[in-house]
Amino acid sequence: MTKKIGIADTMFSRVDMFPFCKKVIGNAPQKYAIERYTVPGVKDLPVACKILFEKYRCDIVIALGMSGKMPVDKICTHEASTAIQNAMLMANKHILEVFVHMDEVKNDRELFRIAKNRAEKHTLNALALLKGKEALTHFAGKGKRQGKEDVGGIWFE
Amino acid sequence: MTKKIGIADTMFSRVDMFPFCKKVIGNAPQKYAIERYTVPGVKDLPVACKILFEKYRCDIVIALGMSGKMPVDKICTHEASTAIQNAMLMANKHILEVFVHMDEVKNDRELFRIAKNRAEKHTLNALALLKGKEALTHFAGKGKRQGKEDVGGIWFE
Amino acid sequence: MTKKIGIADTMFSRVDMFPFCKKVIGNAPQKYAIERYTVPGVKDLPVACKILFEKYRCDIVIALGMSGKMPVDKICTHEASTAIQNAMLMANKHILEVFVHMDEVKNDRELFRIAKNRAEKHTLNALALLKGKEALTHFAGKGKRQGKEDVGGIWFE
Amino acid sequence: MTKKIGIADTMFSRVDMFPFCKKVIGNAPQKYAIERYTVPGVKDLPVACKILFEKYRCDIVIALGMSGKMPVDKICTHEASTAIQNAMLMANKHILEVFVHMDEVKNDRELFRIAKNRAEKHTLNALALLKGKEALTHFAGKGKRQGKEDVGGIWFE
Amino acid sequence: MTKKIGIADTMFSRVDMFPFCKKVIGNAPQKYAIERYTVPGVKDLPVACKILFEKYRCDIVIALGMSGKMPVDKICTHEASTAIQNAMLMANKHILEVFVHMDEVKNDRELFRIAKNRAEKHTLNALALLKGKEALTHFAGKGKRQGKEDVGGIWFE
Repeated sequence: MTKKIGIADTMFSRVDMFPFCKKVIGNAPQKYAIERYTVPGVKDLPVACKILFEKYRCDIVIALGMSGKMPVDKICTHEASTAIQNAMLMANKHILEVFVHMDEVKNDRELFRIAKNRAEKHTLNALALLKGKEALTHFAGKGKRQGKEDVGGIWFE
Repeated sequence: MTKKIGIADTMFSRVDMFPFCKKVIGNAPQKYAIERYTVPGVKDLPVACKILFEKYRCDIVIALGMSGKMPVDKICTHEASTAIQNAMLMANKHILEVFVHMDEVKNDRELFRIAKNRAEKHTLNALALLKGKEALTHFAGKGKRQGKEDVGGIWFE
Repeated sequence: MTKKIGIADTMFSRVDMFPFCKKVIGNAPQKYAIERYTVPGVKDLPVACKILFEKYRCDIVIALGMSGKMPVDKICTHEASTAIQNAMLMANKHILEVFVHMDEVKNDRELFRIAKNRAEKHTLNALALLKGKEALTHFAGKGKRQGKEDVGGIWFE
Repeated sequence: MTKKIGIADTMFSRVDMFPFCKKVIGNAPQKYAIERYTVPGVKDLPVACKILFEKYRCDIVIALGMSGKMPVDKICTHEASTAIQNAMLMANKHILEVFVHMDEVKNDRELFRIAKNRAEKHTLNALALLKGKEALTHFAGKGKRQGKEDVGGIWFE
Repeated sequence: MTKKIGIADTMFSRVDMFPFCKKVIGNAPQKYAIERYTVPGVKDLPVACKILFEKYRCDIVIALGMSGKMPVDKICTHEASTAIQNAMLMANKHILEVFVHMDEVKNDRELFRIAKNRAEKHTLNALALLKGKEALTHFAGKGKRQGKEDVGGIWFE
């Protein structure tokens, strides 16, 4: 049966990350259904994710958000992330949190690049998690990053 | 059937934001019912929102609050926001949080202006969310702001 | 039927605020029943409030607490307040949090005065909330404070 | 029927506080049963407390923990305390949190003394709470402290 | 009946800690089954742990994670740990949190060494907790550490 991927995104974000996810999903060998849910900002995402699970029967959700630079923005993002954790525990399903922080970049171009990279890589992660709990095991402890370059694993003995 | 919008507000706030919401709702092409619930401060809002969902059968709630300048005020607001997240997850319905922070403004006039703008824009957001999960999709990634001017979206490729 | 008001208080507090609440309740035109529950400190209050709702069938609870000056005290108070929010959401009933912070005052006399004022005003708020969701609406946006003087509402247009 | 007191403690703690609790309980006029549960550190305490309530049918639990000096230790302790609050709300029973912070003392001797005093006083509090919700009311607002000397109540009028 | 140990780990971690756990489990006198679950980062661990309990019927879970140096990393780790606490309370089972913080070490070699030591010791703790609530009581108050050397207990009288 076709698996369904929920994608929740925001008006607050300065980058429309949905097309990046859609393209990755479209390029996958299997066919997936997509349900999109757009909300004002990150604090509206958790309940949207939960509705995507319960009403729209999604098997996994990708939550696309952007966080401002001010201290109040960071607290909002923390509240959203805490609730996203609760939504996952209530649903027993994964929500891949693709949050971009406006202060992790130097300019708009870098903001765009990180948003695109992080959305694409986490979409690939979502597709892997849908396959099973060991689909990503090959990469365990390998220092993988989303939005930035991988830092790699280390081993001494 | 007429949809019902809950509006929870506080005595602590220095601006009565209810009239702004009411006007926006009144100007909408559809007819909506309104239920109002007034509490002392932001920490009393979450349970009021939950009661508006469960006892008064609201379909969505707008939570109007104001946050003081002291560190203790910021912690109170964080506690209120965390509980508002929980209330949303329990109800599977949206609560639009219209919180104004006394330290994001320089004077009373600006405080009033931001409160009005944020309340009006989030009421419009509430009306859109009542229509469906893609009613706001047109604005996804467009850098929309409530209380301040939009910053716009970016795209590089 | 006589409504029941729970009052939870602590041994940690340096001010016994219960008599202030009791007097305000006694002066009300209606008759109310009171259930008191004393615990060691603020972190013991949330479950006491929940027991006052569930075992003692209180309709509303007033939680009287005092917070020390040290960073660890502030974290404890935050944990207590977070749990009080959860207790409210579980009960669908209000808990009026009357917390006094030892560092918001200059001396013992001021500590006493703020504790008394905050307890009295929040007891009046509790009585109003028992009447209904719009009993406090007359004061919405009026900058009301408990423990300190009201700052008043603002309006520009 | 004999009441049962759960005592959860950790390997991380530098002081074995269990004997202090046991002695206080043994000196009480009534007879109590004790169930002990030892875990690695404070973050393992909340679920141990919950298991003491649900599987071992304890009527109250004393959680004995110690918190390190580093910022990461303080965050761990905050996470543990937050979960202890949740465990209380789930069980409708008290957990007396006897946490000693390594940075509230100047040397090992003081660390030991505070741990002993706090464990003993909170065991007495536990015994009182088992008697009923007003067993501690005589001390309400009296500035009682555990681990340190009482600061006393104040009254002005 | 053979007990089942869940091991959840991440791609973000720079050290693959699974083999350390596996070896300790393999050296135990009893036979245990192992279920592994690999996720992108620490924020994906809590729901993986919950699924290991509910879908894969694990009796205990070891959560292997690594936390970056930036402030945003610390907040992520806090959110993950808070949710891991919730997952434990929902399952009434232990999750041994083996988190290594990149800023607690001076170089990669030390990072590896701490990760290995912490994973091994917490696996031994997991095996003990599976035996019963007093299997670790011998070490209560002994200042045991994972990832670092024990600091030892103190006693004055």
